Amino acid sequence: MVGAPDRLQRILDFLEFADRFKFVERRGYLTGGERRENDAEHCWHMALVAMVLHGELEDPASVDLGKALRLILVHDLVEIEAGDTYAYDDAAIEGQEEREQRAADRIFGLLPDDLGAEMRALWEEFEARETPEARFAKACDNFQGFMQNVISGGRAWRENGVGREDTRRRTDFPRTVDPAFDALLTRLYARTDREGSFG
Amino acid sequence: MVGAPDRLQRILDFLEFADRFKFVERRGYLTGGERRENDAEHCWHMALVAMVLHGELEDPASVDLGKALRLILVHDLVEIEAGDTYAYDDAAIEGQEEREQRAADRIFGLLPDDLGAEMRALWEEFEARETPEARFAKACDNFQGFMQNVISGGRAWRENGVGREDTRRRTDFPRTVDPAFDALLTRLYARTDREGSFG
Repeated sequence: MVGAPDRLQRILDFLEFADRFKFVERRGYLTGGERRENDAEHCWHMALVAMVLHGELEDPASVDLGKALRLILVHDLVEIEAGDTYAYDDAAIEGQEEREQRAADRIFGLLPDDLGAEMRALWEEFEARETPEARFAKACDNFQGFMQNVISGGRAWRENGVGREDTRRRTDFPRTVDPAFDALLTRLYARTDREGSFG
Repeated sequence: MVGAPDRLQRILDFLEFADRFKFVERRGYLTGGERRENDAEHCWHMALVAMVLHGELEDPASVDLGKALRLILVHDLVEIEAGDTYAYDDAAIEGQEEREQRAADRIFGLLPDDLGAEMRALWEEFEARETPEARFAKACDNFQGFMQNVISGGRAWRENGVGREDTRRRTDFPRTVDPAFDALLTRLYARTDREGSFG
């Protein structure tokens, strides 16, 4: 009789499963447009955004950067099962929450119970957008997604008919989180207008 | 006359430049062997390893996880210019340090001076492997690299003639950092022996 996997094995199984994150495609392209960005790349880039912008916040001490990084690193894991939901696809957004809850049960359930609960709590904190770290992390998420489209010349916007006003769905929120996002986004909009990259 | 880029512009330039990290190919393959892993994916996965293993350490309080994550997220940035140096390529390892120092000058030099110095200090701390966070981060680096080869059936090992004993170059160090790495690596070696994946 084969017993249930033990603690070490559950950790290894989770880390192996996580490799699939690198296959979850987003809509946005990389610079040069050769291929789309994947979730692992997005999370790494978003974490770098957080590291670089943390000191630019009005009150850096109000946001625990280490905590924000932990939220960022797990915030999209559910997409391994639930898939990436495009920010501008209203039909897909409708079933998103239920899909992602089911995915969370499965994915965080791979880990030993205590560790799985800890990781799931991080994901839930991110989703709720209430704590300063979750608000900052979500602002980095939106900012990175917008910036990725700017630096890839807006190809995904044009392919999906996303116009200048539509992009406010991703940029209004970060502007409310801190003036640093507001200032950076103003620059990126000016560049995008100049380059004519909106859809 | 066009002036030097200001603070905001230097931050944006750095974040745009960082997109190239997603094009730096490592030797190891993803599960299924469809393509090689890139640096951004490696860093994200390594950060996840750190998050999951931190609580498994003998003395978690001795390692600041937030600090370790910051080291991990920037530890390979120099490879955008210097390229990935394969752990088993002695000829390439010879010039590695000089190449990477020059790359660091250029890459961290994109940022405003204070921020660039802060990021460079993280990279140097990682490289020195002296602080508890740097030792833990390096152990996660080695562990992830080894595990990636295990879960992709050892393809890169066979392609590069890397045998079981050779892999100790990546696994002896993590075993000295904490018993958790030792136990996990023992499992992974047993699996690799069973599957016959060494080169």
